[in-house]
Amino acid sequence: MENTVLKPDHKYAEVAERIESLIEKKVLKMGDKLLSVRALSKEQGISLSTAFQAYYFLESKGLIEARPQSGYYVKHSHEHALELPSVCDPVDDALPVSVDDMIRQVYSDLNAKGIVNFSVATPSIKLLPVAKLAKATMQAIRDSPAGCLNYENVQGNAALRKQIARQAFNWGGTPSEDDIVVTAGAVEAMSLCVKAITKPGDTVAIETPTYYAIFQVMESHGLKVVEIPADPTVGIDIDYLEQAIPRFDIKACLFVSTFNNPLGSCMPDDRKKKLVDMLAKKDIPLVEDDIYGEMYFGKTRPRTCKSFDRKGLVLYCSSFSKSLAPGYRIGWTIPGKFKAQVMRLKRMHSVSTNTLTQAALANFLSNGRYELHLRHLRKALHTQSLRYQQAVAEYFPEDTRVTRPTGGFTLWLEMNKKVDAYKLHRKALKYNIGIAPGPIFSTQGRFENCFRLSYGELWTESVEEGIKTLGKLVREWK
Amino acid sequence: MENTVLKPDHKYAEVAERIESLIEKKVLKMGDKLLSVRALSKEQGISLSTAFQAYYFLESKGLIEARPQSGYYVKHSHEHALELPSVCDPVDDALPVSVDDMIRQVYSDLNAKGIVNFSVATPSIKLLPVAKLAKATMQAIRDSPAGCLNYENVQGNAALRKQIARQAFNWGGTPSEDDIVVTAGAVEAMSLCVKAITKPGDTVAIETPTYYAIFQVMESHGLKVVEIPADPTVGIDIDYLEQAIPRFDIKACLFVSTFNNPLGSCMPDDRKKKLVDMLAKKDIPLVEDDIYGEMYFGKTRPRTCKSFDRKGLVLYCSSFSKSLAPGYRIGWTIPGKFKAQVMRLKRMHSVSTNTLTQAALANFLSNGRYELHLRHLRKALHTQSLRYQQAVAEYFPEDTRVTRPTGGFTLWLEMNKKVDAYKLHRKALKYNIGIAPGPIFSTQGRFENCFRLSYGELWTESVEEGIKTLGKLVREWK
Repeated sequence: MENTVLKPDHKYAEVAERIESLIEKKVLKMGDKLLSVRALSKEQGISLSTAFQAYYFLESKGLIEARPQSGYYVKHSHEHALELPSVCDPVDDALPVSVDDMIRQVYSDLNAKGIVNFSVATPSIKLLPVAKLAKATMQAIRDSPAGCLNYENVQGNAALRKQIARQAFNWGGTPSEDDIVVTAGAVEAMSLCVKAITKPGDTVAIETPTYYAIFQVMESHGLKVVEIPADPTVGIDIDYLEQAIPRFDIKACLFVSTFNNPLGSCMPDDRKKKLVDMLAKKDIPLVEDDIYGEMYFGKTRPRTCKSFDRKGLVLYCSSFSKSLAPGYRIGWTIPGKFKAQVMRLKRMHSVSTNTLTQAALANFLSNGRYELHLRHLRKALHTQSLRYQQAVAEYFPEDTRVTRPTGGFTLWLEMNKKVDAYKLHRKALKYNIGIAPGPIFSTQGRFENCFRLSYGELWTESVEEGIKTLGKLVREWK
Repeated sequence: MENTVLKPDHKYAEVAERIESLIEKKVLKMGDKLLSVRALSKEQGISLSTAFQAYYFLESKGLIEARPQSGYYVKHSHEHALELPSVCDPVDDALPVSVDDMIRQVYSDLNAKGIVNFSVATPSIKLLPVAKLAKATMQAIRDSPAGCLNYENVQGNAALRKQIARQAFNWGGTPSEDDIVVTAGAVEAMSLCVKAITKPGDTVAIETPTYYAIFQVMESHGLKVVEIPADPTVGIDIDYLEQAIPRFDIKACLFVSTFNNPLGSCMPDDRKKKLVDMLAKKDIPLVEDDIYGEMYFGKTRPRTCKSFDRKGLVLYCSSFSKSLAPGYRIGWTIPGKFKAQVMRLKRMHSVSTNTLTQAALANFLSNGRYELHLRHLRKALHTQSLRYQQAVAEYFPEDTRVTRPTGGFTLWLEMNKKVDAYKLHRKALKYNIGIAPGPIFSTQGRFENCFRLSYGELWTESVEEGIKTLGKLVREWK
């Protein structure tokens, strides 16, 4: 074993000082990985304990951080960071939903080649285990007597549901495989859940800003929404929601409680519990969209609202689209006491989910490959999130506000009131840069000076150039 | 070249007589394939032209038939055949839809092993090109830089749409790939199309009896249906429909015009044209479900209503689920002038369709393997259809009526009025036999003495035993 006990050593301070100077000069940038203790010891000709002591000292000064099973990194400093975005005002009315013309325009040009795409909250393909999934797919075909050509049962592949149930342990869940219904991605899961608990004309509470696909689900079921203001760090205002429920006759809620898209906010455990308990008292169901929950940057997986659910009122939804295989279209729901209704709707709308990609994912997960992949993905996203934030701080005007997510894929930028994010989007497209303008994240024409910047793409020169160009375009409003 | 010119030859008559006697004694049964002309010549030590002459003679007597590119088969004779089912009476009211409790019960036990499954209108896995599709899937993964993990675009894989456009030539269609939207099976296609052209509370005309999933689509969109009586051979009564349109304020139609499920009826070309022209005059859209169209037993592919569509009012829907790969969940629609609405709903409900199975099918079709497979499948289904009909004639009471489909997967049996098909279903399950009882094919509690018998499974002893048992159970009502 290495001797890592601290002892007096004039060497460590000297090494630490040199590292600090590299950080100051930005030779080492936020999120950069430092040498391992062993490598530092070797490179500098110092003992292991001296190397460790140098890092320990820098850590105590808040300059670097240790990440579990990963090593030491230059820490994100808020000293030169931009302000957090503001919380928007509450609404006066529940409104019918209609935003999709702008959405169609924003996403119509995105398949063009050569575009720097900051507008889609998904991981770069380079972060996904392409070869291992191919292998799992081929194995799944070989293992199936029907070559996966048969219809899967309505509820979904049993082996996959078993793996999903095991994975749920991480977020404090204890579902059995029979509690789970597999769907064609999380959007289908949400759509089935929302339909199971509402009727046309009902009002549903959602966060604001929120992912536009959620409005579209509401619109397609003829529902009205009330937008509940959300803090960029801790999520929705539960007291405001409690008052809004009788006022707007809210029948159900749909929240992304962990790493909300676009804010990246994460409700702390106690707030999640408070929310679930408050809704349970009023017997109001909650659809919890947890597609980003596995992409946490901290030490542990945040819990879910579902983990506090005692009455079966939380309809948990998630997918593998953000963490593993977007194109496989596999999601799931744990719909609590609404399982029969959800299964019925699933049978009606899509008969059953893709047999082949379910079997492939079941194979991949059974081989224990998922956890390893997630560890790699989380590290990469954490680093990318810091790099992108740093670039925003560097290239955008100083009055720009930006979120500091602790998980997920997105930054949310609030610019000077003069800036028109939709126009910025049109301008940026001419430079082959795609962003998601703020107004598509609200039904009320809000967030006109905001946009969502996804950091799913690996940090490259063209990404940096893209953010630089965006900053330049924003400055044109001054 | 073979000399196939007829010449006087006493041999041919003798050979023909022996074959005729084998048919009479049912050593050769309806649908059996005969030796090739060459093999017959060899086996009997006769010339090619004598062998050909023998078959020509039997064909002229109506005992055997030549099938293009396939050879000679023992012909289906209606001499000892059962009557055709009757056409039901028209309805008095448009009704809201609700049948699914019975459907759930019927299909809940079907995944049990060892069941003789006559209740699902799909091909036996043994009739599908399992190995070739596996190969196409692996090739698709290798050809994709992202290993097919990326989201496909909303409209669907371009190469697949191109292949679908080429395939449409067979039914008289000339769509371009841009007219096609890929969906998760035909049920999603129908659901999107119906939603695109109606609003809740509208009334839609459908055939009766009809596939229960169609009611479920209607129910889930809050629509009412009017059931239009359909003839077991030529499909719906167009004149009745024309009168029903103003009477029930019908806003749209949804018909399976080619090999309707469950009747197996096929509207002749001129009736399809008449239907399309009549609806065009009234500006009423038609959703055409054509999932069985490729499974024809005659010489040519029946045309579709879509091929007569001049105003873009026909929303064509189909899939690969019945012909190639049920579990791949790939269908498509050619929605005519409603394309923008359908695309919008597709984006809202499922983002995009499975990338991997789209790419696999595109690969399979591009290699020209589909046509060859279809020829094999059609032949097999034709033979199975005749075998199953023969067994029904043999084992069921004489007052049983049965359809004589010219394509598709299903027979429709009308039994004595005393027989309760739902009870028959419950009894049959105890013998591990699954059937689809008549009442699930109507919203009006009709067809209580009918059931659907699918002949997708290969003819085996246990299939024959199953039909024999069903016949025995039916006789218990006498």
